[in-house]
Amino acid sequence: MSERTVQHATIVVERTYDASPGRVFAAWTDPAIRILWDTPGQGWETTEFTNELRIGGRETSRFGPTGDPKYHSDGLNLDIVPNARIVAAGTMHDGDTRISTTLCTVELIPTGDGTRLILTDQSAYLDGRDNPVDRERGWSFILDNLGAHLRDALVDA
Amino acid sequence: MSERTVQHATIVVERTYDASPGRVFAAWTDPAIRILWDTPGQGWETTEFTNELRIGGRETSRFGPTGDPKYHSDGLNLDIVPNARIVAAGTMHDGDTRISTTLCTVELIPTGDGTRLILTDQSAYLDGRDNPVDRERGWSFILDNLGAHLRDALVDA
Repeated sequence: MSERTVQHATIVVERTYDASPGRVFAAWTDPAIRILWDTPGQGWETTEFTNELRIGGRETSRFGPTGDPKYHSDGLNLDIVPNARIVAAGTMHDGDTRISTTLCTVELIPTGDGTRLILTDQSAYLDGRDNPVDRERGWSFILDNLGAHLRDALVDA
Repeated sequence: MSERTVQHATIVVERTYDASPGRVFAAWTDPAIRILWDTPGQGWETTEFTNELRIGGRETSRFGPTGDPKYHSDGLNLDIVPNARIVAAGTMHDGDTRISTTLCTVELIPTGDGTRLILTDQSAYLDGRDNPVDRERGWSFILDNLGAHLRDALVDA
C-alpha cells in the first residue's frame, strides 16, 4: 500500500463589496454569471461551471492553466439560505485523482449599502497533492475577481 | 429575515485499538456491524445506519435519546482507501431542521498489532442549534464504544 497522508486546514477569506447581498448571492450561485469571473489565478481559465441551487443539488466546475483545464470539482449544496448563506461540500480532482475534499461556507452579511462576504474553507488535502497555501491564494484571487465583476456590472447596468 | 449564524470548528479524536486496520475499517463501514456499537451517549440509541461504500455513495443514520430518535444524518462518501481512510461529508438534522454540516476524515494507521484511528471532524454549526462541545463528547463516546465492540468481538471470535 502506498503511503497515505491527510492535511487538514481551515481558511477564512473576507471581502466587503459595494453591492447588495442579493446581487452577490446571484453572482455566486447563477452559473451563467459565476463563470464570467470565477478563475483562480492569472493565466488560468474556468471552462465549465454548473450549480443546481437546491439542497442536495450538484455543483461542478472545471478549470486549470489556460488550454489545460485539468482540474475539476464535484460537489453538493448542503445548506442554502437565499441571499445569506451557502454551504457546499465537494471533491477536487487533478485528472482522475482526488486531491482534496472541502466543506465551504459562504456567509453574506449586509453592511450599510454593501455586503461583507466571509468564506470559510474547511478542507482535507489528500496525499500531498493539494495544499492550503495554494487554496488561500486561489480564493483571494477569486474574491477579488468577484469584486471587479460587481463593479463592472454596476457600470454596465 | 431571522438571524443566521455559523460557528466553524475542527475536532480531532484519536484512539488506539488492539485490532487490525481491516477489522476497524469493517466495523466502521459495514452497517450491520456499525449499528451494534455506534451510539453517541449513555441513554441514547441509533435506530438506523446505512452506508453505500463507494465514492458518492450515501451514508445515513438516525439516533437520539432512547425512544426519541429525532436526529438524522444524511451524507456522502467522498474518499475511500480500503482499510486506511474514509472521508465523508454530511448534514445533521434535528427533525427537519439542518443543525450542522460536517466533513469527517477517519484515518487508520497500523501500529504493531493494532490500529491508531484519527478522526478529524471539520464542521459548520448552523444558527446555534449544534455545537463542537457536544460533538466532541459524542465522538469520544462513539470511539470508546468501538473499542469495547472490538474487544468483545475478539472474545466471541
